[in-house]
Amino acid sequence: MFSKETYVHRRVRLKKNVKSGLILILGNNDSPMNYPSNVYHFRQDSTFLYFFGIDLQGLAGVIDLDNDKEILFGDDYTIDDIIWMGPQSSLKEQAARVGITETKPFSALQQTIAEALKQNRTIHFTPPYRGENIMLLADLLNIPHGEVSNRSSLELTKACIDLRSVKEACEIEEMERHMATACNMHTTAMKLARPGITEQEVTGAIEGISISGGGMVSFPVICSVRGETLHNHYHGNTLKDGDLLLVDAGSESPMHYATDHTRTTPVSGKFSDIQKSVYQIVLNANDLAREATKPGVPYRDVHLLACRVIASGLKDLGLMKGDVDEAVNQGAHALFMPHGLGHMIGLDVHDMEDYDDTLVGYDEEIQRSSLFGLAALRLGRRLQAGFTITNEPGIYFIPALIDNWKAEKKFTNFINYDKLEAFKGFGGIRLEDDILVTENGSRIMGERIPITVDEVEKIAGKEL
Amino acid sequence: MFSKETYVHRRVRLKKNVKSGLILILGNNDSPMNYPSNVYHFRQDSTFLYFFGIDLQGLAGVIDLDNDKEILFGDDYTIDDIIWMGPQSSLKEQAARVGITETKPFSALQQTIAEALKQNRTIHFTPPYRGENIMLLADLLNIPHGEVSNRSSLELTKACIDLRSVKEACEIEEMERHMATACNMHTTAMKLARPGITEQEVTGAIEGISISGGGMVSFPVICSVRGETLHNHYHGNTLKDGDLLLVDAGSESPMHYATDHTRTTPVSGKFSDIQKSVYQIVLNANDLAREATKPGVPYRDVHLLACRVIASGLKDLGLMKGDVDEAVNQGAHALFMPHGLGHMIGLDVHDMEDYDDTLVGYDEEIQRSSLFGLAALRLGRRLQAGFTITNEPGIYFIPALIDNWKAEKKFTNFINYDKLEAFKGFGGIRLEDDILVTENGSRIMGERIPITVDEVEKIAGKEL
Repeated sequence: MFSKETYVHRRVRLKKNVKSGLILILGNNDSPMNYPSNVYHFRQDSTFLYFFGIDLQGLAGVIDLDNDKEILFGDDYTIDDIIWMGPQSSLKEQAARVGITETKPFSALQQTIAEALKQNRTIHFTPPYRGENIMLLADLLNIPHGEVSNRSSLELTKACIDLRSVKEACEIEEMERHMATACNMHTTAMKLARPGITEQEVTGAIEGISISGGGMVSFPVICSVRGETLHNHYHGNTLKDGDLLLVDAGSESPMHYATDHTRTTPVSGKFSDIQKSVYQIVLNANDLAREATKPGVPYRDVHLLACRVIASGLKDLGLMKGDVDEAVNQGAHALFMPHGLGHMIGLDVHDMEDYDDTLVGYDEEIQRSSLFGLAALRLGRRLQAGFTITNEPGIYFIPALIDNWKAEKKFTNFINYDKLEAFKGFGGIRLEDDILVTENGSRIMGERIPITVDEVEKIAGKEL
Repeated sequence: MFSKETYVHRRVRLKKNVKSGLILILGNNDSPMNYPSNVYHFRQDSTFLYFFGIDLQGLAGVIDLDNDKEILFGDDYTIDDIIWMGPQSSLKEQAARVGITETKPFSALQQTIAEALKQNRTIHFTPPYRGENIMLLADLLNIPHGEVSNRSSLELTKACIDLRSVKEACEIEEMERHMATACNMHTTAMKLARPGITEQEVTGAIEGISISGGGMVSFPVICSVRGETLHNHYHGNTLKDGDLLLVDAGSESPMHYATDHTRTTPVSGKFSDIQKSVYQIVLNANDLAREATKPGVPYRDVHLLACRVIASGLKDLGLMKGDVDEAVNQGAHALFMPHGLGHMIGLDVHDMEDYDDTLVGYDEEIQRSSLFGLAALRLGRRLQAGFTITNEPGIYFIPALIDNWKAEKKFTNFINYDKLEAFKGFGGIRLEDDILVTENGSRIMGERIPITVDEVEKIAGKEL
């Protein structure tokens, strides 16, 4: 937990940005796997963590803007809870640690909301994403569950985005402290990558390191020799000579800040010539994107720069042709990189994505494109000092997409389809770092995880 | 996946046990952690796995009893899905593998249910436990979400319990095959248990082994030097000399059958004399319970036998007194073992608990007690060959509960409260095995994980 003042200050700033009404921030509860009491790792709601900081279930925070009150709703532990879950500090004590003096039983929330509704006051909440909280909101607001999402507050959501986009010093410290665990996850995967091991075994080792390091993985691990599938959660393949193992994995810090890195390792220990050429293009895109990442620059431009580096490299390899700028403008490169260059990262790996990624990543000046490839870019607006983002360029050879575009004769002026046939088993390469936008530029957070061809080959398949 | 015939046969038997109407079995969908697209490990619903076997989201199975039809509802992958998630076999192919020939788009489910409702036919479903499925059922049945649970079908639920309670040969094989992973998890924890390591590090190692072995943990890992807290998910302690590390952990097999074992390891590598005495009582209770586990015996009696072994042992240590049988009848021993001896295990670690554990574990003959301790016993009815269960006796010294009972002067004729003061830092010991009820008796599933004092001391704190 950060200092009491951190949370008090955040709420003070929030209150300045939302005019009137009542702000309702629901915590999360345990999420059932296969029956009510068998649950996943508890993950507190990020908005609740940001403003109330308490990493326990069964809580809701209310900020009454009209009466300048802050109330924490929750229940104290019973003797039965203590037998099963152990002793806990009281709700009053929990609340005091984040600067809240007024607490009420959770059941009192219904009446608080009902009274505010009777007075025609606005209940502000951010878009819910768990079924249980959607039903709770429906009950509190006395509306059908299907209508809940439409009632979320744009005013509150925008105020939260404003605050959370620029990271505080304590947040940056927490994130950087956890980078050692991220590095350990990825270097371990590189070392384990050798013929005969399964993706599943590597995945287990990575998740184990994350949990040992203090938190669960920040998103489902991608660990695949079929790296061209962007979010591949199938881990049934056995690694073999010639494969590239793409690992995109991150860990939550003890306070639930995410890391998110991708590395690609040759299973044989050495890249083939063509693997090395493609790898180097992706690495160049990563390096040049990092250099271009600075305050005031629209991130969309950084994305397009990376795309041009990739298109230009693929042209050198004879896989693309024609004018590079024009190819990127029209979106021809998206055959090879259909996703965005990166995204904000913080309490969520795609930070604040529950709020709506277009609201988070775009504004009046820079609006979201609908062009295939560019449309997938989550962050387009101008960067500010204190933003934490990832840069993750990649090159993929996706057989289904190649066949699809080829059949449609898409961008035949920019793509050499005939040469692509030989690449259908190549897989994919992605290289991703976590970046802090500083006052004058940007820097990689923590020590950079080994990334050059030499660095990776030095580790790949070596003893743990 | 088991053979096609296995699933066909299960549905045939189910159809014999539910008379008329329409059986609706919803699969699970991905469960969000902190925003809609950032999800936990996918866990298919166990009822769906049992009857339809397909381990993918976005599915629902309907068995129309009146027209003898079986339909799988779901959607085929789009090119976008393939880019992000990889190629998949078609819904038709998935269905064919489990003997279903009729498939429909998921959106057609609404109409199928609406038509059945119009004809006043019963829609049978088991009690839902995930918010998303509760809302889906509310929409399908056109009722408020708060009413959904009341509408679940007792007839279907009982039919499912009948089938799933007795495991098939293929299920037992799958469970036994996975016991090597369970053993690896527990012997690794024993080896890691040494002064200076944290509970969190041991937990990470265990979860990593489970995932590498093919599946996620079957329930949240309990790994604690405060073993007297029965479901302790706090892992912030550092192990120190004199501590007992209690690890209660299990793994899901690739087909989602659970393991569930508990072992207790001395952090110093050797049990102290008093630790050894208490440990030996628990081990005796475990061994005698296993011997008493056989077809025809009410499991409640096995539970009470284990309780008497514990009460008798504690009497020998001077912590209890008076008539052992009477102490157990009145529930005095429950100060030291407030939980039940064991439970069914299968596709769920507490098998079928979503159906209601009293329905699963009790019947007309043997009804659930309300006595503290015995009330927590999930399984009371007569054992049958083919049941798979756990036996998990334990002895705990729970400071809050001791203080509570002492203040209330509870069972002063059976408990020597004065002598208990010295045990308030002892912690807890639990020893749990997975057991198959055979035709003539029972046996431990897989090789028994090291459990005797000698076996555990031989491994504790040794090199991995």
